This record gives sequence, structure tokens and C-alpha cells, in this order.
Amino acid sequence: MEKQGKIRIIIGPENKIIWAKKGENLAIVLRNNGININTWCNFKGICGKCLIEIISGRGGKEKKKEIELKKRNNWPDNYRLACQINLKGDLRIRIPDESKIKRINVLNSGLIIKTEINPGIKKYKLWIEEKELEKESSLIDIVEKKLKIVKAKTELEALKKLSQFNFKKKSLCVYIYNDQDIIKIDEDKSKLPIYGLAIDVGTTTLVGEAIDLESGEIMAREAGFNNQIKYGADILSRIAYASLGRKNVKELQKIIINDLNEIIKKLSDKIKIKRENFLEAVLAGNTTMNHLLLGLTVNSLGQAPFISLFSYLKPIRAKDINLKINPGGRIFLAPNIHSFIGGDISAGLLAADIFRAEGPLAFIDLGTNGEIVIKKDNQIVAASAAAGPAFEGGNLSCGLPAIDGAISRAEFRNGQMKIGTINNKPARGICGSGLIDLIAEFVRQGIIKPDGRVASQKKEILITKNIVLTQEDIRQAQLACAAIKTGLKLLLEFLGLYPKDLKAIYLAGAFGQELSIENSQLLGLLPSIETKKIIFLGNSSLAGARLLLLNKKSRALLFSLIKKIDYISLAKNENFQRYFLQALRFEPWS
Amino acid sequence: MEKQGKIRIIIGPENKIIWAKKGENLAIVLRNNGININTWCNFKGICGKCLIEIISGRGGKEKKKEIELKKRNNWPDNYRLACQINLKGDLRIRIPDESKIKRINVLNSGLIIKTEINPGIKKYKLWIEEKELEKESSLIDIVEKKLKIVKAKTELEALKKLSQFNFKKKSLCVYIYNDQDIIKIDEDKSKLPIYGLAIDVGTTTLVGEAIDLESGEIMAREAGFNNQIKYGADILSRIAYASLGRKNVKELQKIIINDLNEIIKKLSDKIKIKRENFLEAVLAGNTTMNHLLLGLTVNSLGQAPFISLFSYLKPIRAKDINLKINPGGRIFLAPNIHSFIGGDISAGLLAADIFRAEGPLAFIDLGTNGEIVIKKDNQIVAASAAAGPAFEGGNLSCGLPAIDGAISRAEFRNGQMKIGTINNKPARGICGSGLIDLIAEFVRQGIIKPDGRVASQKKEILITKNIVLTQEDIRQAQLACAAIKTGLKLLLEFLGLYPKDLKAIYLAGAFGQELSIENSQLLGLLPSIETKKIIFLGNSSLAGARLLLLNKKSRALLFSLIKKIDYISLAKNENFQRYFLQALRFEPWS
Repeated sequence: MEKQGKIRIIIGPENKIIWAKKGENLAIVLRNNGININTWCNFKGICGKCLIEIISGRGGKEKKKEIELKKRNNWPDNYRLACQINLKGDLRIRIPDESKIKRINVLNSGLIIKTEINPGIKKYKLWIEEKELEKESSLIDIVEKKLKIVKAKTELEALKKLSQFNFKKKSLCVYIYNDQDIIKIDEDKSKLPIYGLAIDVGTTTLVGEAIDLESGEIMAREAGFNNQIKYGADILSRIAYASLGRKNVKELQKIIINDLNEIIKKLSDKIKIKRENFLEAVLAGNTTMNHLLLGLTVNSLGQAPFISLFSYLKPIRAKDINLKINPGGRIFLAPNIHSFIGGDISAGLLAADIFRAEGPLAFIDLGTNGEIVIKKDNQIVAASAAAGPAFEGGNLSCGLPAIDGAISRAEFRNGQMKIGTINNKPARGICGSGLIDLIAEFVRQGIIKPDGRVASQKKEILITKNIVLTQEDIRQAQLACAAIKTGLKLLLEFLGLYPKDLKAIYLAGAFGQELSIENSQLLGLLPSIETKKIIFLGNSSLAGARLLLLNKKSRALLFSLIKKIDYISLAKNENFQRYFLQALRFEPWS
Repeated sequence: MEKQGKIRIIIGPENKIIWAKKGENLAIVLRNNGININTWCNFKGICGKCLIEIISGRGGKEKKKEIELKKRNNWPDNYRLACQINLKGDLRIRIPDESKIKRINVLNSGLIIKTEINPGIKKYKLWIEEKELEKESSLIDIVEKKLKIVKAKTELEALKKLSQFNFKKKSLCVYIYNDQDIIKIDEDKSKLPIYGLAIDVGTTTLVGEAIDLESGEIMAREAGFNNQIKYGADILSRIAYASLGRKNVKELQKIIINDLNEIIKKLSDKIKIKRENFLEAVLAGNTTMNHLLLGLTVNSLGQAPFISLFSYLKPIRAKDINLKINPGGRIFLAPNIHSFIGGDISAGLLAADIFRAEGPLAFIDLGTNGEIVIKKDNQIVAASAAAGPAFEGGNLSCGLPAIDGAISRAEFRNGQMKIGTINNKPARGICGSGLIDLIAEFVRQGIIKPDGRVASQKKEILITKNIVLTQEDIRQAQLACAAIKTGLKLLLEFLGLYPKDLKAIYLAGAFGQELSIENSQLLGLLPSIETKKIIFLGNSSLAGARLLLLNKKSRALLFSLIKKIDYISLAKNENFQRYFLQALRFEPWS
């Protein structure tokens, strides 16, 4: 089987055959034929990651740079850089597994999406020869020339390190950000991975991961509290406190940065590296957290017309906000979509692959702010519903967040209410999923009426010896469910959709897997669609942060995508009031 | 007189006629016809600086932005932005002087070169309407959209200011760096100029100027000492001290930054503005100063193969080196050409317009390091000659820098040596130009022999009661003159030139106008060419810094030009030793 005028490439050991034209670049040909050859350095021929073995045929003349790279690494003669080969004739090659782009799963529950590993920070090994020192006009010129960068932006700390370097003895490692900024120069520690951080910056909790940026592996995970909580459990009280003056803003900034530094320290201890080795951190937080961690006033978020200061921010230096990673390391914030739809949601949408998934589908983050996003064809709308803190255990007489001992499940069986607690610890309060279960079961039993009234005279229901559900608690749950239901209903209406049209509802947020879909549907929190269509995402903000950290291409992509989202102000809709009043009844969607 | 199918534009009051095609942009047409219409904002239609008056004819429909801008500024109806007009038919217009690009002279002595005013920092006035707050996703998005910037890099300080702004009451000023970075946001102070600093960072003295970046006017000038001098008068002793450890480097950095801050404070006091109003500083210093002020080790400058850490550095933030201007303000360093040919020389070459001037010509900076640059056609070569400190009064028994009371001129008349001092203060030492005069006159009188020996037995010559010229002083002058002569000779030879081929020799450096050309030629320091071809530049580093500050286009230009300069190592030339020995004789060039 031959093709006129074409070059045949046989790839072993499977003997896959692909065809190319004379003069074509081998790496591009492989890519076009579905083989994910690693072109880490963008065809510059400096990273050596597209190494292939030539079994037979000729790869053409090697350039000086390739010869040197091969010599330095003791690669055999018949090994070549695919990106440096312009095809001359038929070839039989073998592609080592290491030369293929690694893809890893970023989301472990609900959805599995794969990403290519292409981080913002890349590491290159360099050798400087004595004769180059004599030829070039400066050391940075030599580094730039070797890395094929024009006018790099070089951190002063990197220059300082370079100025103390002993070239006669050692090769060096240069760490480049976005193919342009030289952020770190060090002795050759090419065996040491490059580390990055993905952090979910929640209003209540922070979860951080240390990630190997070359393999994509999660090396360690740590969680901690957001100690801003002493100025209010919910976002609005943080905004209120911050609005009292610059001093308060600075204080809130200091608290969150300290909390983040605490997590970073734990992570670095766990994997036994210095904090300076973290070269980038991607943070996914809501709009208010994004503002406060930069020390920005949130006045514009606290009053009409509510508006965020920024949506996309170019990466900033860790040093500038005192985050204790490498001082020249970069901080990237998942972009805010609108005043009350922040980076946690944009990261979540990315992790859930909403932009590419076939709709119609909905993404709901069930928290104090219930963020709702619906996609239909190419249209995406988003709204924020003020659910109040009940889903997070706030404002309840016996409320608890989803921590040890919180009642997270309940079931009426054999005439008795059976409860389950988180980690099976003795019950000491009720968290969101428990609240839904309890109310649903009491509604089934007629103990709570569909309008929310407690049927008994006492107006409260004893759950355990010390834990009660009061009439007021039930009112809070009514408000929360009604807010979400109204928001979802209005957005569906806006797009001309019925609940049954949805192919999926993705659930993000604190609820986690504990939420009973059936009970949520009974109370009207979720529409009555097939339960298999309702998918728990787990911590999708964190998964999104991980994705943004591992693949820099996803950043610009996410930014361009969120620009297309239409923000809908629910309260301005003429039906809002009426729908909300209807939604207050505990009953399934009609 | 008509041209088929063309549009006629008559420009009053001179009634100059130019022709254009239908659909052409008026501002571009004017530019192409030699009229320097100001297109400050790059045809974005946001700065209003290309305003013209339409006397008759139609300018076409105005876009919303132009209408708003005109309304805000109360400009009459028949005024239009030239950059927003696509020609439809004949026009008669008037161009106010304010709409033409200002050009100013940057060098006041020796040469006059004009520059266009196009600084790195530009200021724009903005108004944000209530309805925009509701439409857009963030405040920075609104600002970016209005300024037509995509993904601006915004300083945190600017964001902070924006977050505290009261839009209902005021318009705001946004300061943009390189059309991309938002470095400052402030209340509308559009009447307040934008200020910048041009600073000559010398080994001995610092000279700074506060400059209005819109008019190009020099508002104030201040000089001060470089207090690093306590660690040695010349560069080599600074390098030696710095090479002893990081602590010393930090100390030298602290000293020079303090000295610069002192000058900045004086300048801001003088013109009565806050230091925060300086938004950019251009520094022109030699390679060592450029390294030390960034806190960089200079080891690579102190040992073979001598090499600079960097040549061109992207602008850095003032805050990062603790320079007390606006914390987000930018610092631009005139680029280093080679290890011993620094930013002072590149700035000087720019100021002397060497790159565009018709050669062959030479540029010589007569200092401790005598830097020599020669241009022939498109070839430019540069070398550094170790002249020693004699020209700056160093290492002489009665040496002084060019300060009050230094003997700067001498003439043998009527059997007597007449001396002149700086500012006519009582003589208290000898500076460079005085040294040349004294030796030349004594050579004429036979008191000093051409080989440098003092004819008398005493081996020293009394000048005044307290001031003597010793045999050793004369040896120092011999070494200095020979170093320059040898360097110049070798470079000329390298290019196949004779001294008489030179159209000009530009002299920069501490000598100033006081140096006698005739005496320099007698001793062989300068070749014997027509004296009118020898031109004193004054402080060309400062003039170059001013040029770089006022016209950002000159930066990239300078960088690309210095890349073309070939550095010649004099000591490696086989003739060096022989020529140097010959040059030690006090005699004119043969």
C-alpha cells in the first residue's frame, strides 16, 4: 500500500502507519494524527520532551542545539527530537511513553474530566559555556537566546541568583512563567519537580493541594478554617465589617492570608519541601474573598448597583500579597463572573466542563449564596439566589456546619426517626442535608404542613435529647429552598426550558454527597427529574483550581467563556415576588 | 486645480492644500503630509488631543464616544477628532497648535536634537455612568473597555483606589503605562501634569531632573553625591568591595537608593508636588551602578571573562527597589551595551544621535573608564579604555574633582603661568582640564620632556604656594592619555579609518567645556583634526535619560541599535602593548 509522493511513518511496536508530506514537521504530523507528542517548549527544541527513537530511515541533519542536548543527556544516537525533524523520507519510529502528553483526571467524584499538562511555570536546564560568556553582551542575553525568549521579564531575585552562580562547575535551572517571565533561577535540580498549589478559598473553609506540575499528581491535601468567620459566618457580614473602613479591610486580608500561609506551611511540611519551591498558586474564591485577599475594599459589592472591582486579573506576584511561596511566584485567581458569582463558580463551571458539555444543563452551588447557571445551546445564563445560611447550618437553633457530630441524614422507619451523623459521632446539631431529610420526613408524616407550620401545638420538634427543630428553623429552610427554586424556575423560563429538558443538574457546594435527592425533590428544592440526572460534583472549585494550575490554556479559555455568560438579576424580574411566594410551600415542582 | 477622484483638504490660515482618497483617515493623511497631528492615544479617540476645527465641508457621523468627549469638554460642534474622521468629501480645516505634537530639545550644549513627546505614562480622564455599572461585569472591565485595553495589568494600589471611588460625584484619571498597565487611578486632576524623572547615576555625582511628561519641560534640576564613594572613588574599588559578600552589595544598594531618594525629595520640594506624583524614572548609569542599584552582585564584572548580568531590563516597579516615587511607578534603566560600557553610554549615544548621524564619527566619554565608540557607515564598534582616575582629579598629589577652587585652566603668558579656577574660587587643587593645560604648557616650555620627565632636578613643579605637580602626577596623566589614544587608534584601525576621516568627535563626561582642545591635541589625547569637529556634549547621559523618558519609542529603538554594536577587547589586540608604549609620549598624533 503506497501513496504517491507521500512519506510513510510506521510507529512501533503496533506498526501504526501514518502518511505525511515531504518537509512537514514530524511533531506536527504526529499531533495531527492523534498522537499526543509532548511539545512542552513549543517547538523550540530546548526541552527534549518530544524525544523519539528512529528504528529505520533518516531524520535529517541535527542542529547544534539538538546535538548538545543529546550529548548532555547521554541519549543514544538514533534518538531525535520530533519537533526538530522536517520529514525527508519514510521513517520507522518508536515513541517512548514519556514523550506523550500526560493527561490526568481533575475531578474524582461525579464527573471525570481529563486535562493536558501544560502549566504556567516551566523549567529548563541550561549550560553556559566559557566561550559564550565572551561572545554575548550579558548573562541574561545568553539565557534568553538559549530559551528563545525575546526581552524576558526577569525577577530581581532570579537575577540575584544568576549573579552568584558558578558556571564553571554547574548547569542551571531556569523557571519561566507563561513562556516570558524568568521567575526563578537555581542550581540544576532537574530531578526536583516543580510544585504548584490549588486552593479553594471558601467563606468557611479553605482546602489546598500541593501538586507536582510535571506529573499532575496531587502530593498532599490540607484543609483549614477561614478565621474571618469571627466577623460573621456569611459573606454579607464580612462585607459589612469591611465597609467600616480600610483598617478592617486590612485586618480581613491579614486573616485570610495567614490562614492560607498556614495551609501552605502544612503542605510543604507534609511533602518535605521548602515553601519557596511552590512557584504558582491558583486560588478559587467567591468575589468577596477574591477582593479581601488582595486587600481591596468591597464597598461596591455591598451596595447597589452591586459590581465587582475586577473579573480577570493578570497573575500577581506572591510577594505583593505576602503569600509565603516563592516571592517571585505567581498567584492566579479564578476569574469572577459578576458581583456575586465569583471565581469559585467559574472554576466549578470549568471543572464540570459546562462550556463543552451538551446542554441543556444546570449547575447549582448550594450555599448561602445559591449560584445557578444554566446552559442551553450556546447561551449561558447565571443568577445568584440569596438562600441564607440554613444549608450551611447557619441561623438554625441547633445548626452546625457539616462537621463531626452534625446530623446529616434522617429517615423515618418503623415509627421512629433514625438519624445519621457525620463520622458517626454523637449528634450535636443539624447540618444542611440533615435539615432537608428531617423536614421531608416530617412533611411525609404530616407533622409539618406543606405551608411550613408545625402541626403540634408546641411549635417545635424534639430530635434528640438536646436537639430540636423549631418553627423558626423550618421558616429558614423554607426561605432557602424557595430562593433556589425561584431562581432555577426563572432562569429556565428565561431560556424557554422545562425542568424535564435538562440533561443534567450538577450540584456543587458544601452539601456534598449527603444530600438526599428524593427529599430535596419532595420539598421542591430540586425539580422532579430522573435522579440519575442529578450529579454531585464534590469540591468543584478546588477541581477547577487544579485544572487552571495544570493547564494554562484553560485560563484564557475560561476568561473568554465567562464573558459570554449573561447575568440575570432575579429580583428585577416581574415574576420574582409571585414565584417566590408560591415556592415557599413544601411541595414537588409541578 | 483638481485631481480626479481625490479629496481636497485646505488647511488654514495658510491655506495649505493636501490631497487624499475617499475613506482615508484624516489623522493619517495629515501625518503623511508632514503635519504632526498629535495621536497620543493611538487612534482610539479617547484622548482628544487631535482636535481640529472644521471650517467647511463635512466630517461625517460622530460616534457616541466622540460626542460624549466633546460634551464633557464643552468643545464647539464644528470641532472634531481627526483620528475619528474617515474622509467623505473636501474639507477646509484649522489645526490648533495644541493639536500638534510638541517637539523639544533634549541636549542644550554642543548638539540640539528634537524629540517627539510620547512618554511611557499616559493619563486619561474617564466618566463612569450609573447604567454602565449595571451592565458590565466589573469596574475594571468598564475602565478597560473605555480605554480599549484588553486584559490590562492593574496595580493593586490602583485597584484599591478604584474600590474607594465615589463615581456619582466625580470623574477619574487613569494612568496607563505602555498602553497596557494601569499603574494609578485617582480623582480627576486633569489639570495636574504627569511628572517623570531623568537621572544621571554617576560614580561620583548624581544629577536628576523633574520633567513634565506632557510638555517636556524641565521643572527642576538637582545634583548630589554618590555616597558609595566612601568605598572607593573608582568603579573597580566598588566592585572589589561588593565582591566581598551579599551584605556589602546590600549596603552599596542602600547608599545609592538613599542618595537618589534625597534628590527626588529635593526635586519634589522644589516644584511642590508629592513624590507619589512621579510616575516614572529613567536612570542612566554605568554597568556597575545599574547592578548595584538593583542589589545585584557584580562578581561577573570583576573577573574574566567580564560580563554584565543584563543589558536590557523590562521596567521594574519603584517599590521593588524602594525608590520613593509612586510605588507602582516604573523604573527604566538605560540599557548596558557590554560589561564596561553601560547605560550612561547608551543614553549618551542616543542623545548624540549617533545612530542616525552620518559618520564616520567618534564618541568618547573621558572618565576613569574611557569609553570609545566609533561609527562608520552601519558599523559601530565600542571599547573601554582603562584611563585611571587622573582626568577626574583622582590619584594626583593635589587632585580635585571639577568643583569650586579646582584649577581648570592654565596658560603660560609673559613668562608666567596664569591659572583659572572653577567659579574663580581660590585655588585648592587641580582637576582634569587643568592637568591637561598645565602639562601642555610645561611641555611647550621644555620643563616637561615629551617622555614625561620633569627637566629640573627637583622632579616636581610648584604651581601655587600649596599646589604642586609631581613626577608621579605626570605619569598618571601619561597613562590616562595613552589609554584613550591607544583605544581610539585601535578602533580606527579596526574600521580602516584615519583620524582625518572623522566628521566629528563627540566628547562626553566630567571634563565639560573646560578642556582645551589644542592642549589635548598637543599631548596626543585627541587626534589633530580641525578643532571645530570636536564637540562637547555636556551631560549626555542625562540628556539621553530625558529622551528615553519623553519618548518611549526611543527605548525599543535604542535596544535594537545597541545590539548592533561590536564590542572590541583592546587588551586582546596584538598591537595593544606596542601602541600603548608609543602613546605614552606627549606628542601630537602623527
